Amino acid sequence: MADMSEPYFQHHVFFCLNQREGENACAQHGAQEAFDHCKQKVKTLGLAGKGGVRINKAGCLDRCAGGPVAVVYPAGVWYSYVDNADIDEIVEQHLKQGKVVERLVLPDNVGR
Amino acid sequence: MADMSEPYFQHHVFFCLNQREGENACAQHGAQEAFDHCKQKVKTLGLAGKGGVRINKAGCLDRCAGGPVAVVYPAGVWYSYVDNADIDEIVEQHLKQGKVVERLVLPDNVGR
Repeated sequence: MADMSEPYFQHHVFFCLNQREGENACAQHGAQEAFDHCKQKVKTLGLAGKGGVRINKAGCLDRCAGGPVAVVYPAGVWYSYVDNADIDEIVEQHLKQGKVVERLVLPDNVGR
Repeated sequence: MADMSEPYFQHHVFFCLNQREGENACAQHGAQEAFDHCKQKVKTLGLAGKGGVRINKAGCLDRCAGGPVAVVYPAGVWYSYVDNADIDEIVEQHLKQGKVVERLVLPDNVGR
């Protein structure tokens, strides 16, 4: 029986790293650098691992209009970020302290 | 303010498609074929899209010992599958009817 009370990862973060030739995609907007920065910071802070945080590569998350985007599960909080300062805020406030960074939340009507 | 009551995708499924040269990884165990099959089936059944199902590519999900693996968020249900029949069961029972396929659930102690 699956135990829903304790997720395998408390915060499982997926970064879109999608590339599209000649088209706008998250990878053309610094997604790889943001992913690398986020992963390193989470590791440095000792947050990584089972019961903690996992920073994950993902393909297109289908919300390209808000890109670059990342989503934090199981909470289901979607972020649109610009630079490393945004990533730092997500890590320190959300992933470390559990507080959603409202100013970076992707509005629900932003889609593909 | 983020609205947690209605997730952007009801079921957001991430397949590990990770490849590691000379090493065991999900991609060496049919993950790409399973992903393609799942994506097509979800589309055919009309489940895909906002408010519905999204089948997503992902990098290593860090639970390689149970691979090939996929995780369904926001529920946080992890699956270990073998073939297309398993994928069909996940799509028809879980993604369509919301019933977890217990026999395919990855035990919590299976990690990297």
